[in-house]
Order: sequence, then C-alpha cells, then structure tokens
Amino acid sequence: MKNNKLAIVGVGHVGSYVLADAMKIGLFSEIVVIDKDKDVAFGEALDQAHATALTYMSNTHVYAGNYEDVKDADVIIVAAGPSVIVTDKNAKPDRALLAGVNAEVIREVMQGITTYTKEAIVILITNPLDTMVYIAENEFGYPKGRVFGTGTMLDSARLRHAVASNYNIDPKSVTGYMMGEHGMTAFPVFSRLNVQGFGEKELDVHLQGKEPLDREVFGQKVVNTAYDVITSKGWTNAAIAQAAITLAKAIVLDERSVYPVCTTLNGQYGYDGDVALSMPCIIGKNGVEQQLEIELDEQEMELLHKSAAYIQETMRIAETGKIKKVN
Amino acid sequence: MKNNKLAIVGVGHVGSYVLADAMKIGLFSEIVVIDKDKDVAFGEALDQAHATALTYMSNTHVYAGNYEDVKDADVIIVAAGPSVIVTDKNAKPDRALLAGVNAEVIREVMQGITTYTKEAIVILITNPLDTMVYIAENEFGYPKGRVFGTGTMLDSARLRHAVASNYNIDPKSVTGYMMGEHGMTAFPVFSRLNVQGFGEKELDVHLQGKEPLDREVFGQKVVNTAYDVITSKGWTNAAIAQAAITLAKAIVLDERSVYPVCTTLNGQYGYDGDVALSMPCIIGKNGVEQQLEIELDEQEMELLHKSAAYIQETMRIAETGKIKKVN
Amino acid sequence: MKNNKLAIVGVGHVGSYVLADAMKIGLFSEIVVIDKDKDVAFGEALDQAHATALTYMSNTHVYAGNYEDVKDADVIIVAAGPSVIVTDKNAKPDRALLAGVNAEVIREVMQGITTYTKEAIVILITNPLDTMVYIAENEFGYPKGRVFGTGTMLDSARLRHAVASNYNIDPKSVTGYMMGEHGMTAFPVFSRLNVQGFGEKELDVHLQGKEPLDREVFGQKVVNTAYDVITSKGWTNAAIAQAAITLAKAIVLDERSVYPVCTTLNGQYGYDGDVALSMPCIIGKNGVEQQLEIELDEQEMELLHKSAAYIQETMRIAETGKIKKVN
Amino acid sequence: MKNNKLAIVGVGHVGSYVLADAMKIGLFSEIVVIDKDKDVAFGEALDQAHATALTYMSNTHVYAGNYEDVKDADVIIVAAGPSVIVTDKNAKPDRALLAGVNAEVIREVMQGITTYTKEAIVILITNPLDTMVYIAENEFGYPKGRVFGTGTMLDSARLRHAVASNYNIDPKSVTGYMMGEHGMTAFPVFSRLNVQGFGEKELDVHLQGKEPLDREVFGQKVVNTAYDVITSKGWTNAAIAQAAITLAKAIVLDERSVYPVCTTLNGQYGYDGDVALSMPCIIGKNGVEQQLEIELDEQEMELLHKSAAYIQETMRIAETGKIKKVN
Repeated sequence: MKNNKLAIVGVGHVGSYVLADAMKIGLFSEIVVIDKDKDVAFGEALDQAHATALTYMSNTHVYAGNYEDVKDADVIIVAAGPSVIVTDKNAKPDRALLAGVNAEVIREVMQGITTYTKEAIVILITNPLDTMVYIAENEFGYPKGRVFGTGTMLDSARLRHAVASNYNIDPKSVTGYMMGEHGMTAFPVFSRLNVQGFGEKELDVHLQGKEPLDREVFGQKVVNTAYDVITSKGWTNAAIAQAAITLAKAIVLDERSVYPVCTTLNGQYGYDGDVALSMPCIIGKNGVEQQLEIELDEQEMELLHKSAAYIQETMRIAETGKIKKVN
Repeated sequence: MKNNKLAIVGVGHVGSYVLADAMKIGLFSEIVVIDKDKDVAFGEALDQAHATALTYMSNTHVYAGNYEDVKDADVIIVAAGPSVIVTDKNAKPDRALLAGVNAEVIREVMQGITTYTKEAIVILITNPLDTMVYIAENEFGYPKGRVFGTGTMLDSARLRHAVASNYNIDPKSVTGYMMGEHGMTAFPVFSRLNVQGFGEKELDVHLQGKEPLDREVFGQKVVNTAYDVITSKGWTNAAIAQAAITLAKAIVLDERSVYPVCTTLNGQYGYDGDVALSMPCIIGKNGVEQQLEIELDEQEMELLHKSAAYIQETMRIAETGKIKKVN
Repeated sequence: MKNNKLAIVGVGHVGSYVLADAMKIGLFSEIVVIDKDKDVAFGEALDQAHATALTYMSNTHVYAGNYEDVKDADVIIVAAGPSVIVTDKNAKPDRALLAGVNAEVIREVMQGITTYTKEAIVILITNPLDTMVYIAENEFGYPKGRVFGTGTMLDSARLRHAVASNYNIDPKSVTGYMMGEHGMTAFPVFSRLNVQGFGEKELDVHLQGKEPLDREVFGQKVVNTAYDVITSKGWTNAAIAQAAITLAKAIVLDERSVYPVCTTLNGQYGYDGDVALSMPCIIGKNGVEQQLEIELDEQEMELLHKSAAYIQETMRIAETGKIKKVN
Repeated sequence: MKNNKLAIVGVGHVGSYVLADAMKIGLFSEIVVIDKDKDVAFGEALDQAHATALTYMSNTHVYAGNYEDVKDADVIIVAAGPSVIVTDKNAKPDRALLAGVNAEVIREVMQGITTYTKEAIVILITNPLDTMVYIAENEFGYPKGRVFGTGTMLDSARLRHAVASNYNIDPKSVTGYMMGEHGMTAFPVFSRLNVQGFGEKELDVHLQGKEPLDREVFGQKVVNTAYDVITSKGWTNAAIAQAAITLAKAIVLDERSVYPVCTTLNGQYGYDGDVALSMPCIIGKNGVEQQLEIELDEQEMELLHKSAAYIQETMRIAETGKIKKVN
C-alpha cells in the first residue's frame, strides 16, 4: 500500500536537486523536506510549492517537516551531512575523510526515521556511501533490502557516458556498470560491458572511437570525470539526484529494474556481513529485491577485493570518527 | 534545421496510435495527418486537437492535410495500407500476402512524399515491412539512410518482454533484439542477449525463471505473442506505435541511439543491395546513421539467411503483385 | 493508502485509448483490463505489455483480469457498453438512444465492482453519461463522491479549443467550461469564460478573432465539432480518454483540481437527488470532494433547466429501456 | 526553422536550475552552457551529461561553450549577474540595488549574443528584471518581441499559489496574475482573478478559505513569500527556473500561450517606449507575439503607475550605476 509520499532528508546541494527532480516526475502526491536547518527546508519547499502553479506542473503537496512526517512515506532519500570539500584543485579529495562526521549524521538520521517507520524504503546518498549504508543497514534492525545506497549507479552512468562519448552514441544504448566502492576504487566490469551486444573487444572494430577502449584508461576516465565535476563546480549533484529519483520511481512503480546499488553482502564474493558495496540488484517495491552475483574475471575480482578492503578501512575510520573529527 | 513537424501517412489502427503517442510526447509543434480517407484524417486530427485543451497537454497544431504539407516535415511516419486480416483464429496470417497490395500503396505514398521533400526522415511501418522498405529505399532516389522501417524493433521489444516476464524483471533491464524479417522468420540474437551483463547461459543460474531460457522456445514465444495480439484483438498497434515514436524522438533530438531497424544491406552479411532486413543501426538526425554488423554465431547466421531468403521471396511476390491481387 | 493501480472496464474504441494514455503517464504500477470479450482484454493488455520494453516506458504491470482484480484498485475507469452508432452522416445520433442498453451494462458493471470494492474511485465514460452516473451513484450504495462521470470535461475542452482556435492562442490559456448534459444540450457558461481574465465582451476588442464570439454560434460549434469527429472517423476517443486520465491523475495525486464533471445534484440549482449533470467540482483523492455551485446568468439558467429536463427524460427512457430496445 | 537548441548564459543558483529543468523536458537536442567562470560552466554541463546515461533521460548534447555557440540557438535564457544578497534577515533587499552592476552584465551579454545572432529568442531572468529588459530590448537593435523577461510570471505563480493554498485547491485551477515590476511593487490584478470563473467576490462564498480574500493582504502575501524564500534558503531559483523553461517550451512549440512577461510598452497604459514592465502577452515562436492591454480598475491602474515609476527610477539608477557601485 502506497501514499505516493517521498521524504527528503537533507536539502543541501544534492538534496535540493533530488527535490527538484521529484517535483517534475509527476509521481508524488506529497513530499516532505527535512533538514537540520529548518529555514533551508522551509525555503526549498516553498520555492518548489510556488512552481506548482506553473502550466505543466503536478500539484504535489511539498512542505518542510520533521521525522514524524516520514511515518507514512513510501520512500525516504537521505542526502544529509557535509559533502566532499575541495580546497585544492590539485588534490583529489577522498570521501573517506567524511567518514567520521557523517557516520554520526547517518546514525542521527536513522534514529529519527526508525522512531516512526521501518517500512519506508530508505535510499542513502550521503558519503562515504558504502560505510554509511553499512551503518544504516546493520545498526537499526531495519528490514533487509529496505535500506540501501545509490552506490555506483552514478559511477556507472559516468562509465556509460564515457563509452558513449567515445563512440558518439546514446549512453542509453550502452549496458555496463561499475562495482565496488562509490568512489575512487570503483571499477568497471568491462567483461560485461556491451553496446547492444557488441562487447569490449568488438567496439573498436565496428564503431569509430576517439580512442581505443582500454580498460585502465576508461576506468580512470570515470574516476577523473567525477573530480572534474567537483573541482570545476565545487560539488556534484545533477546526475546523483537523477539516479536517486530513478531508484525511487522503480520502487514506487515496483519496476524490478536491475541497477548497481550498495547493500551489505551476505555471502557474495566471499563477504558475509562485513562490507557493503555495489553490485547489480533488482529494485522493486521492497527496495533491494535480490542481489545478483555476476561472475567477474580475474582482474575484476582483484579490483573488487581492493575496493572492499578500502571500504572496510573507511568503516574503521568511521568507528573512530570522533578522533578524526578533531583533526 | 528542424521544424518539430511530424507527418503521419495513414491513420488506421496503427497510424491513429502513432498520432496519439505523438501528441503526448511534447516534442512536436505541428503534426499533419494524411489519409486516403480524408474524413478519417479530419476526424482523427480534430479529436486530438480537442485534447490539447486539457490540463497537461502541449499545444501541438494538429490538422488533416495533403502531401504538400510534408514539404517542411522533419519526420514522416508511414502506416498506410491494409494490415494483416485475421479470418481464421487457427491460421497464422502471413504478412507476405499483403505484399502485392501494399507495394502499390507504398509506391503511391513515396511518390506523394518525394514530390515535396527528400529531406524528411521517413519511417515505414506498413507490412510486409522489409519489402516495403526495399521499394521505398531503392525506387525513388531517396537519400541513403533517410528512409527505413521500424523493422524488428517491435519483435525485439517482444523478446525483451518475454525474457523479462520469465524472470520477473523490468524489460528495460534486458539488452537484446531480433534480426532479419519483421515477421515469422525474425530470429533472436541469443548470443548477444543479456540482462545487465548476465548472458544467455547465466540467467537461469542467477534468476528464478518460470522456464529455462531455451533458444527455440523463446524464439517461438516472440512469434506466437505477435499472433496472440492479432488474433485476440484483431490487430496490433500499441507497441508498434510506441516503437515508431521512439525512433522519431531519436531523430528529432539526434540521440544516436542503437535500435534494430530495417534498411537495405550494402555488403553486410554477404548481401549487397538485394535485400532489406533489420540489424542494429545508429539512429540520429539523418535517420540511419550507421549499420552495425554484429557477428552472429553459426545457428544465428543460418537463421539470417533463411530470413533473407524469405524476404526476397516476398519481394518477388510484390513484383508480381497485380496477379496475386486477382486471386 | 494507494496501490497506484488502475482498472479499466471496457476496452473498445474509448477504453483502449484510456489504456494507452494510462501506460504513458508513469503513474501506475499496475493496470488491469476487464472486458466482456476476454480475447480483446487479453490482446490489448498484451500489446501494451510489449511496449513496456521500449526505451522510455515505465514498467507498468498490465494484464487482463476480472472484477475480482478491482479489489485493490485506486481508480476504475468504465468505458463499457456500445457507443453512438452513426448510420446516416446527416443524422445527429442521440446518446439517449443508448440509454436502455447501457443502463443494463452499467448495472452489471457496478454489480461487478461493488462485489469487491466500494473504496476505489469510479470514473464513468459510458453514454448517455448523465443517466449512467445517476444509476451508478444511486442504486449501489456507493459512497458519495466516489463515483462520477467525465461529464462535460470533454465538451469543455472542445469549447476552449473553439475559442482558442478563433483567436489563435493556446487553449490552455482559456478558462471556461460547458455545464449540464454531456451531449447535445450541454451549454457554455459564457458569463464566466475568460482568456487570462479577458471576458466574453473583451476578447474581440483585444484579440483578432476569425469571427465574433457569439454565444449561440460558439455553443453550436461545440455540439457540431463532436459530431464532426463522430461522423468523420466513426467514433470519438482521443480527447475523452485524455480527460479520463487527467481526472485519474488528479485523484491519485490528490491534486484538488477544479473540473466540470457529472454527479447527482443535492440541492444545487434547485435539484435534489433527481438528476445528475455536470458542474465544476473539486477532484481529489476522494473523487468529487466538493461541488461548486457557480451563479449563472438568466440565459444560462434557462439552458441548465432545459438540459436537466432532457437528462431526466433520458433517465425515464433508461428505466423503460427494454421496451425501447425492441424498437 | 529550429535546431531545438538552447543556450543558457549564467549558471549560478538560477541558471543551474534552468539547465536541470531543460535537461528533463525532452525537447532540446543541444544545450550550450555559457558562464564567465568557465570552470563552473564546464562542471555543470558535465554533471548533466552524466545524467543522460540514466534510464529515462533523453540524450541531449550538453556542453560548455562561448557566445559563438549561440549562433544557431533557438532560445537563449540569460541568468547572468549577481543576485539579491541577503545580509540581514529583517531587511527586505531591493533588486534595484543590483541595477548598476547588472546593467553592465546585461550589456556585455547582449553584446556577446548580438555578435552571433539576432534571431534567437532571448529570455532574461537577471534582476532588476524590468530595467535589464529595457536595456536589452532598446540598446542593441534586437528585433521587437524577440527579447523579453520572465517578469511577473513568477510573482503570478506565487499569487495563484497563495490563493490556491487559502482554499486548498490546485493552483492550476486559479487564473490570475501580477502586473508591473518583477519585485516589490508588482500588483495582483484582482479584478480579473478567478477560480474556474469564480471571481474575487465569490470565492469566499463558495470555498472555505483559511482567511478572506482581501486585496491588500494577498498582495502583501506575494511580496512576503518571495522574501520568505530568499531569506530562508538564501536565494530563489526553483520556481523562476521552471517559469523560464515553460516560456522556452511555448516558444519552441509555438504554443501561443498567454503569460505575463516583461517587455517595453509601446502605447499601452499611456507609456510609450519609456518603461518595460509585465503585462499579459502571447508567447510563440517569435517570442512576444502580442501584448494584451487588459483594462484595469482604478485601484489597479494607480498601482500600475506606481510600479512604472519605481521601475523608471531603477532605470535611472542603472544609468548612473558606476557611481552606485562605488557605494
């Protein structure tokens, strides 16, 4: 049973874009905006409410609220907590540095949510994403699958964009994704990448690429393009917001679409409850309906383990976060 | 340079649905409806014009017109000519039977179009599709790529739907297509079919299917489901109309999406100007921007040749159509 | 609480278009198609299911079903029963002639629906609409407001289209509607018609019209344009389907939009439970949330009474329908 | 002839939302982003480009560019220049203070644009809007109607929202607008405001309002709600961006919708080339196709003159902007 109600927790750069996208999709009857800064929540909701008076807009009821308002929400998107801060254009900021601060933010948010519901599907965006998902999924008794993170859905869009740009085609014609950490150690699953069935080795034969489809080069392109966005505009919000809304739609309409999202592993790839990372999952009305353990080649498997190790290290940082925060 | 103008030639069961879809997509400034039965063209256009006064509708200028009105069209969708007629529920009607009649229809339509433009991108839907495309593409000096047929785009949607239904997932998560004739000899390219990278052999391992993914069984499902639609409702129009509009959007927005559409082969798979059939193509502002000759396995290659032979036979029927019509 | 589930009863010319529109709106998780002809229901659902495999389509679960499947529906749109039949282009067919036949159809449909739910919002399209609404609303103990008819929402779209065409502007910039019967005695509420505040008397001063905005002429235009559609294409379905879907959206999203729809009067304009006709109503999650009794001028009041009398006559025909059907 | 190409000049708070909305509307083949800060333009374009790889997104080509890239644009939306700065929550910042700085910004932008095109329709958002429009429209020989400002389209949305909220109805069911300055002296045209024909005096009779529809109270609400947004979130961007995109759509599809936008008066209300302010206009492929001089009541006329005087004062400030800037 649904109310077509969305809750957005945190309306900074990312959350405000999630809100903007949610207002246009014509799917939500009600959207509640929650932020520690009640003024910002109020202002964002009011600005969007004004837009509902324009020609093609649905009359969505949008307002600033509190955790109490999530009690009848179908989907909650969490974009709370500070983002990566770019102080030096040459430095590649690491999401892990946020681990300490945002672990506390997520605990507070999950505390707020679980006071009122354990039924809504919770989509996390807050970074370092994998660690935040691990905490949210494992510390609050939230039903399995009903809380997960956008994960490498964004990294995957960047991969498809990079491939599509190289061959001058629609990125929607590219099937492919990144797995592992949402961040610097994410890796492209090249063994499975294809353009309507044309695999990794065939693309350069049939399509005129700007450069050859080299695994390392294109893997690096995805990491670089993320930092290109962050260092040039100061943050990244457009594509990640759209990713979150795409997931929300899959949930509300029970689409059972396969997307790479972040969730705790339970036996897959040899991990059992000790790490959360992104792998292809079926997304439906119950959130993550199924994790699909795709077979990786040797090189990819190695990258998965590296990525998992990196996440686990971040998890430890999060645990000792209070000390880190002092620095 | 574009006018965001669409022309629809033939507004029977299929063309009227193309029109309905075109009115909702918010992309066209102007839609002209052309039909031999001027009353029907007038009625369909007027009914749709009334709908523009409803809340969420774009103000598209829709009207009944003549071939003269295609002169500044960006895209022309041709759904003229009689469809498969179902007289006996147990008989599987063959599109080839229409060859004679519709060859004349398409010649008349192309004559009408080319009197006013050779710039618009022409998308054919009329059956038997491959033969109609061959005639339109080769008899009127229309620029290469600017006229093509929806081809197996519909058959491919049915394939993805069959696979998706079997595993209870979103068909948009399935990458795959049929090639060859749009009709009974179309064949699924199973060697390239995948669900987000999970190939033919892996699906039954990772996903709980209603039945095993057998090539023959699923190939037959696609053929059967087409006739299920035709024999139960009397015709098929909803999915084919949406396919045509998806192509029209790819053209107007120059999306360069890869879709399986029908066009004359020029060297691919050993055919050179002697048959038109469906294979993956890049669709952009110039229509078919590139044909992508995907490598097929032995079994698929055999099916391609069978399908090509079947189309060539239909082409011959079309040539001697007047005689056929007498029967 | 919602399921984002739509049921469509009757998929002939109108219902099949309602289905097509519903599939595009991205709002429904599930659509069940019900028709006396189970083959047609199956074929329409299957054709639409195939379309879900195309690029931009939502993965809506669409299938043929029975009345049992309406038990968890949010909205039920009823387009069952035969339409106006055009035998003579010069004759203006009268919806009232259908009264006898369709009264029985609607009773059967309401019997089917109420066996499983009295919570879903039921939108009727079947003609003669006002009589059908009266029967559905008053004979089955359905909660007030939860069953109503599209009424003059279509006639109103035609009025706005006629005015907009005269002045060459977007019909969405015209505020105005028809009241009374959905049919030949519907009347335009000219005293309230305006183009962004420009009233009836001002339009010809500020806008260059093709002809002066004469009440009688434009009232007649609306009646004529309906028959123009019917006599030229044989039926009318595009605009009425869009009207029904616009109402369904207003309900699912609880938009509380004001639309002219058909419902039994309870004291308005001097009628109390003895007639159902169209007047402006607030449409929200409970269906008709409020009827808004707009003050009419003397001429309009007279037309309302004439229209009400005409509907009441049709209601009597419906009661003695079996006799009428013999003729 | 169109290219479905949009140019956005200035991607700060407002321009970045214009870009986000433009990416979702499925209407543009190409979007070029221009900003003095080339890094920001690059980052915004890249972030949006990544989003095109997500499921439901159109493949719009989005990139950072220069004025040269506007030469084949259909529509240019200008959101360049600093916004109102809120230093004190209790102070109501005045757009006029920006006049000096932004007059130079707009001159630079118009210089850039007119070097390459005088055909694109230019929509200005930069404040103080009316003064900016006056400069852009009158100093560069741009064809009449092809440059105009969003004007009171936003203020009008706020008015309809305020009225709709009061009566708990869909704001799209409210017809009404503000005229005059986009800013503190904008005034509601209450004499023409209506809810589906229910006028100012009737609303409280038929609808249960939270408070009576008092002219002064509701006029003030609109002014206050603008500052509520600005002072709570720091700026306003969501609704204004949607307003600009709604206008862009009306232009590209030649919808001929009536919207209140800002343009220089030529004889209307006694002004002739000496002020630009907002009044209802028909918006089509040529931009402002016609200005519609609606008759105002005495009170409204007085407010119009006050607003015009205020704008003219701002225009003088802009002329002596260099001095002002020193302060």
